Amino acid sequence: CESICIFGTGDFGRSFGSKMLQCGYNVVYGSRNPHASNLTPKGAKVLSHEEAIKESSIIILAIHREHYDFLEQLNSQLEGKVLVDVSNNLKMNQFENSNAEYLASLVTGAKVVKAFNTISAWALQSGTLDASRQVFVCGNDVKSKDVVMDIARAIGLTPLDQGSLLSANEIENYPLQLFPMWRLPMYICTGFTILIFLYCALTEVIYPFATSNENTLYLVAISIPNRVFPIVSLILLALVYLPGIIAAFLQLYRGTKYSRFPDWLDKWMLCRKQLGLVALAYAFLHAIYTFVIPIRYYVRWWSDQYTIKQVTTPIAFSSHYAWLSDSYVALGMLGFFFYILLGITSLPSVSNAVNWREFRFVQSKLGYLTLVLCTAHTLVYGGDRFIYGPFYKWFLPPAFVVSLIIPCSVLVLKFITIIPCLDSRITKIRQGWE
Amino acid sequence: CESICIFGTGDFGRSFGSKMLQCGYNVVYGSRNPHASNLTPKGAKVLSHEEAIKESSIIILAIHREHYDFLEQLNSQLEGKVLVDVSNNLKMNQFENSNAEYLASLVTGAKVVKAFNTISAWALQSGTLDASRQVFVCGNDVKSKDVVMDIARAIGLTPLDQGSLLSANEIENYPLQLFPMWRLPMYICTGFTILIFLYCALTEVIYPFATSNENTLYLVAISIPNRVFPIVSLILLALVYLPGIIAAFLQLYRGTKYSRFPDWLDKWMLCRKQLGLVALAYAFLHAIYTFVIPIRYYVRWWSDQYTIKQVTTPIAFSSHYAWLSDSYVALGMLGFFFYILLGITSLPSVSNAVNWREFRFVQSKLGYLTLVLCTAHTLVYGGDRFIYGPFYKWFLPPAFVVSLIIPCSVLVLKFITIIPCLDSRITKIRQGWE
Amino acid sequence: CESICIFGTGDFGRSFGSKMLQCGYNVVYGSRNPHASNLTPKGAKVLSHEEAIKESSIIILAIHREHYDFLEQLNSQLEGKVLVDVSNNLKMNQFENSNAEYLASLVTGAKVVKAFNTISAWALQSGTLDASRQVFVCGNDVKSKDVVMDIARAIGLTPLDQGSLLSANEIENYPLQLFPMWRLPMYICTGFTILIFLYCALTEVIYPFATSNENTLYLVAISIPNRVFPIVSLILLALVYLPGIIAAFLQLYRGTKYSRFPDWLDKWMLCRKQLGLVALAYAFLHAIYTFVIPIRYYVRWWSDQYTIKQVTTPIAFSSHYAWLSDSYVALGMLGFFFYILLGITSLPSVSNAVNWREFRFVQSKLGYLTLVLCTAHTLVYGGDRFIYGPFYKWFLPPAFVVSLIIPCSVLVLKFITIIPCLDSRITKIRQGWE
Ligand SMILES: Cc1cc2nc3c(=O)[nH]c(=O)nc-3n(C[C@H](O)[C@H](O)[C@H](O)COP(=O)(O)OP(=O)(O)OC[C@H]3O[C@@H](n4cnc5c(N)ncnc54)[C@H](O)[C@@H]3O)c2cc1C
Ligand SMILES: Cc1cc2nc3c(=O)[nH]c(=O)nc-3n(C[C@H](O)[C@H](O)[C@H](O)COP(=O)(O)OP(=O)(O)OC[C@H]3O[C@@H](n4cnc5c(N)ncnc54)[C@H](O)[C@@H]3O)c2cc1C
Ligand SMILES: Cc1cc2nc3c(=O)[nH]c(=O)nc-3n(C[C@H](O)[C@H](O)[C@H](O)COP(=O)(O)OP(=O)(O)OC[C@H]3O[C@@H](n4cnc5c(N)ncnc54)[C@H](O)[C@@H]3O)c2cc1C
Ligand SMILES: NC(=O)c1ccc[n+]([C@@H]2O[C@H](COP(=O)([O-])OP(=O)(O)OC[C@H]3O[C@@H](n4cnc5c(N)ncnc54)[C@H](OP(=O)(O)O)[C@@H]3O)[C@@H](O)[C@H]2O)c1
Ligand SMILES: NC(=O)c1ccc[n+]([C@@H]2O[C@H](COP(=O)([O-])OP(=O)(O)OC[C@H]3O[C@@H](n4cnc5c(N)ncnc54)[C@H](OP(=O)(O)O)[C@@H]3O)[C@@H](O)[C@H]2O)c1
Ligand SMILES: NC(=O)c1ccc[n+]([C@@H]2O[C@H](COP(=O)([O-])OP(=O)(O)OC[C@H]3O[C@@H](n4cnc5c(N)ncnc54)[C@H](OP(=O)(O)O)[C@@H]3O)[C@@H](O)[C@H]2O)c1
Ligand SMILES: CCCCCCCCCCCCCCCC(=O)OC[C@H](COP(=O)(O)O)OC(=O)CCCCCCCCCCCCCCC
Ligand SMILES: CCCCCCCCCCCCCCCC(=O)OC[C@H](COP(=O)(O)O)OC(=O)CCCCCCCCCCCCCCC
Ligand SMILES: CCCCCCCCCCCCCCCC(=O)OC[C@H](COP(=O)(O)O)OC(=O)CCCCCCCCCCCCCCC
Ligand code: HEM
Ligand code: HEM
Ligand code: HEM
Repeated sequence: CESICIFGTGDFGRSFGSKMLQCGYNVVYGSRNPHASNLTPKGAKVLSHEEAIKESSIIILAIHREHYDFLEQLNSQLEGKVLVDVSNNLKMNQFENSNAEYLASLVTGAKVVKAFNTISAWALQSGTLDASRQVFVCGNDVKSKDVVMDIARAIGLTPLDQGSLLSANEIENYPLQLFPMWRLPMYICTGFTILIFLYCALTEVIYPFATSNENTLYLVAISIPNRVFPIVSLILLALVYLPGIIAAFLQLYRGTKYSRFPDWLDKWMLCRKQLGLVALAYAFLHAIYTFVIPIRYYVRWWSDQYTIKQVTTPIAFSSHYAWLSDSYVALGMLGFFFYILLGITSLPSVSNAVNWREFRFVQSKLGYLTLVLCTAHTLVYGGDRFIYGPFYKWFLPPAFVVSLIIPCSVLVLKFITIIPCLDSRITKIRQGWE
Repeated sequence: CESICIFGTGDFGRSFGSKMLQCGYNVVYGSRNPHASNLTPKGAKVLSHEEAIKESSIIILAIHREHYDFLEQLNSQLEGKVLVDVSNNLKMNQFENSNAEYLASLVTGAKVVKAFNTISAWALQSGTLDASRQVFVCGNDVKSKDVVMDIARAIGLTPLDQGSLLSANEIENYPLQLFPMWRLPMYICTGFTILIFLYCALTEVIYPFATSNENTLYLVAISIPNRVFPIVSLILLALVYLPGIIAAFLQLYRGTKYSRFPDWLDKWMLCRKQLGLVALAYAFLHAIYTFVIPIRYYVRWWSDQYTIKQVTTPIAFSSHYAWLSDSYVALGMLGFFFYILLGITSLPSVSNAVNWREFRFVQSKLGYLTLVLCTAHTLVYGGDRFIYGPFYKWFLPPAFVVSLIIPCSVLVLKFITIIPCLDSRITKIRQGWE
Repeated sequence: CESICIFGTGDFGRSFGSKMLQCGYNVVYGSRNPHASNLTPKGAKVLSHEEAIKESSIIILAIHREHYDFLEQLNSQLEGKVLVDVSNNLKMNQFENSNAEYLASLVTGAKVVKAFNTISAWALQSGTLDASRQVFVCGNDVKSKDVVMDIARAIGLTPLDQGSLLSANEIENYPLQLFPMWRLPMYICTGFTILIFLYCALTEVIYPFATSNENTLYLVAISIPNRVFPIVSLILLALVYLPGIIAAFLQLYRGTKYSRFPDWLDKWMLCRKQLGLVALAYAFLHAIYTFVIPIRYYVRWWSDQYTIKQVTTPIAFSSHYAWLSDSYVALGMLGFFFYILLGITSLPSVSNAVNWREFRFVQSKLGYLTLVLCTAHTLVYGGDRFIYGPFYKWFLPPAFVVSLIIPCSVLVLKFITIIPCLDSRITKIRQGWE
């Protein structure tokens, strides 16, 4: 039965120890006050640091970096041992070198391995390891890393080798990150949202107030958001598929795939997933904002007035309008359906269960289908409104007309790249990758 | 090429054998009637038990516990072999010791390993391993466990070391469990559902019947459920965030994090995820029950009457009501949106892809935002109804007024804990965990 | 620090090399023009093929099959080395033997391992390994496979042992597959969709046109799809549960579980998951098509006419209709809710987190509940329409009546199998599996 030594009887030390005990290891704690700790898990010995070292060749250091200095005195006893640094900092790049490298410089004789810092003590103990089960491991000694990775596997975690101790800094920064990949898409989305919102507010709240002193501020709760959400969603969706086209033209122009893309294009291509999901979120909001339309007091009141008007002056049924109204709504719903399909295949467990060809089929083929459906939905919704004068307030076209520029351009450009002669050239250039 | 021996040519034996064959192992069956079995996979030898033992150092025992006794006679031949117990029982804790321990006591010379009992024979064979791919492994001999874990990996399963043979009982009980973590949340939810249902039935079905002999029983199909669902959802959502606050106050009072919470609080905290998902399910039902409102005959009829009334006595448009009606619906939809976001991040594969800080950001920050939005939705919906007399039937306030007590208390208490002076004390106490 | 050699400085070679470098390996490239390559990752040496071989015992062959012939000359230097074939083809079974077997026949002294062919170079490099992280590994030498599997694990991929080099063909075909399991369900679904669509078009577009020259073509956008989707969904749902019943009767008839099912039944049983998900997709479309009903111009116009008619000839409120209308909608919504629950538990990560009993509880018990609710929804929706004459155009019953045949039969048959005497016989026969 293997033995393991843990320095520090704090939260992390105790959680980790009790988990190791459950998995059949012998656990020995090294503590400043071996007799004070009454919360350490049953079955574990608590000794002084010096004594504890002797019991095992692996030492988990469940202590904050600030208190590492006492290890300098234990340098000789730690010779050849595996020292596992689990520590985190409060801020990114708080110190000039990483905790693990600092430790390695303190205890020169030990083999330092960085691991487990992404695991929450509380989650480990209570078994609710919802957030990441991944354990990033790095260290200069391959064998020591293997030992640590086996421990991680034993307690049901997934170790991931990250190379030498140089990666320690990155690993220590990881748990302090807050959605780094979502930042750019969020900024783009926020920017467009504000822009379109102001545009709509101008034409639908300020314009009637300025021209006829009408107070339509209540439109701000649902009506205007239900313009902003779909318009921004459509623009973002188009922006997801634009970089692929730019890349294709670039490769065509350069005549080779063996040259790097400009930096901005690379970044853009890497955030397409997040951009797409934000667009899906907005489309979802558009969908539910649309479903509640008939419940709204404002809509009910106007529709009542319309009905009442018909009591005296009947209005004939227009099968043209019936067709137009039904088909734009149907196009929207089909677009939304494929949108969600794209979302479902983005779920890590689903995308892991399909092969690359299938993933590209859904993301690229069905993705363009989604874009086509959503653009058609907006075009048909526009219908007569494009040219109908009264809709142009202060000579401003309705927001959706403006919003169609990017999607339509993307579709036209895509159409150009799939013209046989261009398509075969691109395929030839790209040959070699699947 | 490695050899493996399987005792028993039943369902499990055959499925397991054919999978092993596919992965390039040699398979030898040990059977009572070596010549009778014509369904064993092609390429496998079928021998008597005695002969089969000689061919391999690992023996998979695909036989029910009831028939283990014949192994006693083979004790000497089994000396030093790895015996893998895959058996399950029909009831939890059916026998006083676990099957694996019973086996170890029968065949004292062999190294018994418990494994594979959670894998369905049919799923293994047909490749539809939808339910758990995890193989819990336990045993007293580390090397034997490693051998078995390698086999599990070879056939695409994920082995999880569970320590010594003492865990066998737990492992054998596992496949007999039926959502143990969901039990408490389900009871709580059912309790509240019945309570609120009766309350609503009293005020909306029994009251009109008693006072004006009106038959409104049809409200039981949609109208009343559409009160019960959101109200219970809101209460459950509040109950998700209450234990965190109680814990904070307890830690403040005790001045330390190094002492265990009372048992009930621990249990409550561990079922928050399930409680939250049940709440989400109810919120989802509320959403779709709301979307169909305008389709219902009952609603259409009343709204027709209202329209007809306006033909003769026009009712002026109230921009106050338009504002109120739109904003409570908008708040509800935004709340629902964040609710779903919480649900999506609970999916194991998504929560595994985020780090602890990100998970807490969504679950805790956005969770409170959800609670705030949903409470505001209900408050604004209430609007004038809180004080408006006719809504108090038999002096009973409308159900939603009652339902607001817990959410509002939770929000007030939370507000107290984030007052700077208290917040900094809690932070200090909790310092040490991320 | 381990060394690894890569032949070919193309897309795959470079991506793989830079990933290996990140994980702390030494990377040496073997290239035709060692000095021409300026895109190889920093830190890697580029040598001629002959020199590169000497630096490592593992060689990754990032070259297309067409160019393998030059390896024959290196036969002696490759003696005993691990040669990893990563190549893919453009078509399934393009060559008569697999690339890996062809390689093994060229370089007889080396140990050929097939691996990494499912990994996209671009995804590997950019870190967006959305599609499959699984690496299928096969080869005749167990130790070489282990070495390759360790490399896969080191770069964060999940290796899966697929046995000997005979599996290479299957592994090479895998990335060329396009949803093979979804094909049959898709055909079935498309067939029923076309059939029901034509049936509805006949009764709702052609019939009015033929009999009263009415143009109702606009029904094709939403009204008719909203009949087709739910009807096909219901039929498919019933088809999901039919094979289980046929299997039970077959086992009853044969009196044993130890005999294979006919081939068609086996295939049917294996595509139930996909069939169920397609049914869910249609149910989802039915749900959103229903939510938008009150927004449609066509519906609003007719409902206006109905209201206007009531101005002069009031129509009394029918609590019978209120009850009927509310209860069929409620049944539909509850059915939809459980439908989605089935969908959620099909997500790989969720089904992996439940045990077999729980999975069967949801899929089988709640699945039948879903079927019962959806069938009841349609029956109650039918209500008086079943017998009401005018609904039978050209003596054709409304589509939903036809659609009820299969679901009702399935429910009746299921009901028979759970009659105690039959149920206990089936249980006895099946005894032995959980
Ligand atoms: C709701 C939603 C969810 C989404 N989820 C995801 C997701 O989970 N993951 C994701 O990646 N995207 C996601 N997206 C974004 C988008 O769908 C995909 O990026 C899609 O593949 C882009 O299609 P495309 O035809 O423009 O691709 P292209 O740019 O033409 O190429 C697509 C693929 O080709 C390869 N490729 C492209 N250029 C090169 C090159 N120069 N050299 C080598 N290889 C190259 C890459 O493998 C790339 O992924 C999502 C979008 C939406 C709307
Ligand atoms: C739809 C939905 C889905 C949900 N899904 C999940 C889910 O997947 N997983 C989940 O856990 N919850 C889930 N929840 C419940 C809830 O959102 C979370 O539990 C949330 O983190 C609680 O927030 P809080 O601010 O009250 O947390 P707090 O109780 O303040 O603390 C949250 C975290 O802090 C830590 N912590 C708290 N107290 C202590 C302590 N005394 N000592 C050490 N550490 C401590 C723990 O890591 C804890 O998880 C879900 C809720 C909803 C509505
Ligand atoms: C939305 C939706 C999602 C679905 N997702 C899935 C999914 O993820 N995975 C899935 O498998 N199905 C899925 N289904 C299909 C269906 O729900 C399941 O197949 C369900 O288990 C069938 O129930 P049953 O009672 O007919 O099963 P039965 O056929 O009675 O048996 C169910 C199980 O018993 C076992 N079994 C049956 N017959 C035998 C036999 N002769 N010998 C040995 N074992 C046997 C098998 O383990 C089988 O899976 C889904 C359906 C829907 C509508
Ligand atoms: N808690 C988590 O969720 C978590 C997650 C990942 C990583 N970590 C890391 O794990 C480490 C420990 O965290 P924790 O939450 O367990 O902290 P903690 O509860 O504050 O415990 C720290 C322990 O360190 C020891 N210690 C304190 N001062 C010391 C000193 N001057 N000299 C020697 N030992 C001293 C003490 O143990 P004795 O009294 O026994 O000496 C104390 O119990 C930190 O580096 C942290 O970054 C924690
Ligand atoms: N089926 C599953 O899905 C599943 C899943 C997990 C675990 N398991 C476990 O696997 C074991 C086997 O299950 P099963 O479903 O394969 O059962 P089974 O189909 O009934 O087969 C049992 C086999 O045991 C052998 N056997 C029966 N009586 C015996 C006796 N008196 N002495 C010696 N051998 C005898 C028989 O093989 P011979 O005729 O060849 O001797 C028989 O085929 C059980 O312990 C079960 O709990 C099964
Ligand atoms: N790209 C992917 O996404 C991907 C994914 C999985 C598998 N694969 C497989 O990986 C292999 C390489 O694909 P790739 O995309 O990297 O192709 P590539 O970009 O076209 O590169 C092929 C490399 O092979 C070398 N080569 C070409 N002709 C040669 C010849 N006659 N003799 C010797 N070497 C020659 C060249 O390297 P030097 O100029 O340095 O000699 C060239 O860079 C293929 O088998 C492919 O199926 C690729
Ligand atoms: C209804 C549609 C759903 C509604 C709203 C969709 C919101 C989309 C926003 C997703 C945000 C996910 C937070 C991810 C956190 C994170 O960084 O997660 C990080 C991981 C990153 O994974 P990688 O590291 O592998 O790139 O990303 C994800 O897991 C993406 C999750 C995608 C979820 C899409 C879910 C769509 C499901 C639709 C179901 C059907 C709905 C039916 C509606 C009627
Ligand atoms: C529309 C919202 C979805 C509708 C209803 C939500 C139902 C929520 C109930 C989930 C029940 C899951 C059963 C889990 C079985 C189990 O024990 O599962 C066990 C696992 C346990 O995992 P752990 O062991 O890791 O704790 O739990 C889960 O996997 C939780 C699954 C959460 C699923 C949430 C899904 C929300 C998706 C929302 C998509 C967008 C919808 C858009 C709507 C318009
Ligand atoms: C709203 C419901 C969702 C809307 C539409 C549902 C579409 C269902 C079709 C799923 C298609 C998945 C493509 C799979 C690709 C593939 O082959 O995937 C392959 C994997 C195969 O896994 P195995 O190899 O393990 O069998 O299959 C899956 O992963 C199945 C994914 C199931 C997804 C169901 C999602 C339901 C989520 C519902 C959320 C709540 C919605 C609330 C609505 C208001
Ligand atoms: C459930 C699916 C959908 C339905 C029912 C639907 C319905 C509608 C309706 C009724 C309108 C008119 C709104 C109004 O009168 O103010 C509209 C507008 C619009 N929709 Fe959709 N839609 C759906 C999905 C989508 C999707 C997925 C997109 C793409 C992103 C989209 C983009 C738009 C746009 C850009 C407008 C114009 C907004 C404006 O200027 O008013 N819709 N949709
Ligand atoms: C799609 C999102 C939502 C919409 C459109 C919506 C809409 C509505 C509507 C129209 C009502 C009035 C119902 C009636 O008149 O009988 C209502 C009531 C209510 N809603 Fe929501 N809501 C949503 C989400 C939520 C959420 C997420 C919650 C929180 C759990 C919630 C809680 C409530 C409560 C408690 C009531 C009062 C119930 C009553 O007594 O009638 N709602 N909602
Ligand atoms: C959100 C949940 C659901 C709602 C609100 C709903 C509502 C409705 C409504 C209003 C109709 C009448 C449509 C019309 O007048 O043309 C209908 C018909 C129907 N529904 Fe549903 N339903 C739901 C879910 C389901 C599900 C899950 C199924 C099962 C697959 C289903 C099967 C059917 C069928 C077969 C019809 C008859 C179609 C016809 O011939 O018109 N429904 N549903």
